[in-house]
Amino acid sequence: MMNHILKLAICQMAITDNKTVNLSKAESMIKAAAQQNCQLAILPEMFNCPYKAELFSQYAEFYPEGETIQMLSKTAADSKIGIVGGSIPEKDKFGNVYNTSFIFDETGTLIGRHRKIHLFDVEIKGGTVFKESSILAPGQDCTVVKIAGVTLGIAICYDIRFPELSRLMTLAGANMLIFPAVFSVSTGPDHWELLIRGRAVDNQVFVVGAAPATTIESACQAYGHSMAADPWGNIIGSTGIEEEILIVEINLEKMCTVREQLPLLKHRRPDVYKSNYNS
Amino acid sequence: MMNHILKLAICQMAITDNKTVNLSKAESMIKAAAQQNCQLAILPEMFNCPYKAELFSQYAEFYPEGETIQMLSKTAADSKIGIVGGSIPEKDKFGNVYNTSFIFDETGTLIGRHRKIHLFDVEIKGGTVFKESSILAPGQDCTVVKIAGVTLGIAICYDIRFPELSRLMTLAGANMLIFPAVFSVSTGPDHWELLIRGRAVDNQVFVVGAAPATTIESACQAYGHSMAADPWGNIIGSTGIEEEILIVEINLEKMCTVREQLPLLKHRRPDVYKSNYNS
Repeated sequence: MMNHILKLAICQMAITDNKTVNLSKAESMIKAAAQQNCQLAILPEMFNCPYKAELFSQYAEFYPEGETIQMLSKTAADSKIGIVGGSIPEKDKFGNVYNTSFIFDETGTLIGRHRKIHLFDVEIKGGTVFKESSILAPGQDCTVVKIAGVTLGIAICYDIRFPELSRLMTLAGANMLIFPAVFSVSTGPDHWELLIRGRAVDNQVFVVGAAPATTIESACQAYGHSMAADPWGNIIGSTGIEEEILIVEINLEKMCTVREQLPLLKHRRPDVYKSNYNS
Repeated sequence: MMNHILKLAICQMAITDNKTVNLSKAESMIKAAAQQNCQLAILPEMFNCPYKAELFSQYAEFYPEGETIQMLSKTAADSKIGIVGGSIPEKDKFGNVYNTSFIFDETGTLIGRHRKIHLFDVEIKGGTVFKESSILAPGQDCTVVKIAGVTLGIAICYDIRFPELSRLMTLAGANMLIFPAVFSVSTGPDHWELLIRGRAVDNQVFVVGAAPATTIESACQAYGHSMAADPWGNIIGSTGIEEEILIVEINLEKMCTVREQLPLLKHRRPDVYKSNYNS
């Protein structure tokens, strides 16, 4: 029986057009989390940049020299706290831009990097057109890292809609799935909590959704409502729409108990899935 | 744009120890559904038999001569209605017993048979012990059939907990997933609606959960609450715990609209799933 408690902070920050202001806000929230003895701070998707596809390239950074990346590494080391760096636009030397989460341990060492795998392309006739794939390159890999004794699966926003990816992270050993995300006010009320609780119940893991605060004037109005679910699908912490640091304690023993009572992962039938799998 | 309406009836019947009474109740509910111009009637899991593993063999039937199977075929033809025959214990000539759903079209012809794939084995130290696999043999196949112009994926109870199977049925063309099921009063309140809505949202299909009525005196107290969700995850019909015929109309146009607005199935990344898939 694994009795291991992790105290984490979800930093539901308000994101502005000003990168310097965003970095300073993120840094102060991470430091506040560390002062409350959190071992892990989690930021929202695209926390250094407004959520406008046409701005991603302008705000993008190279690893390791980018100022956001440097700030995260230094803050982690200074405050001795692990950081899931939400996401930022990342450039590579070929000119590709990714939606990337940089993950640091409490010494400031990069221990993982998730590039958003599923890009959000919507093209409703006469309606909304949003085509991330025209600006962003997709990630190719499932991301699982160990931090403060807990194995984390990291994916970004739209990635949560694909049950395959959450299952892969779970099979790779994740005890907690973390999704920095900007759901909008149109899909958030119907799907955000459902997806977070659903991934938790299917995989018997903790699930965290880290959203920015709602800022009325932004192009894509964020839904807010960061939250965390336990492996039985119960919500163990949630915010509203305002800026807030949500602190949650998770105990891995809860996961072990749920998996012992209802051994879903042992009852999978990969033989059937493979023989019926066409695409 | 597919504008196709299907009117279906979920027969939330009370199940007794008396097989003859159960068959007569099922038949009368199916006929009542047909009289209300439903094209499809759906029965609950193990509708001819109490949900006690030790009784499954005694109530089990061979195809095609079993009396329940004959009743379903005749009632379908007489009333010109398709039937998803919940499930019953089925014997094969090797002595295996399956938890099987027999599916008939409106001429009484068998068009599909689903044998429950995931067997429910729970063994909590000092607590509940339930081991279906000691009595039942597992199915090996994903079941998708076409009835009254709609492509149905059929699976049974515990099968709903495995996102892989719902995805397989969807990729095989299902527009609606139907789960005859007996969730208990211990897991039902926390997970039943969540799973039904979650499978609907992930796969952008209609999902139906067909449960028996709650009968206080039964060994495994059923949760009841049959319900149907649309491809956006909205509940479009639900019952309480009493015996009831729930009638729901589904329009495939709703599925097309949802899939056009948010083309999830086009955005899957099988390349990533395969390269990261270990088991």
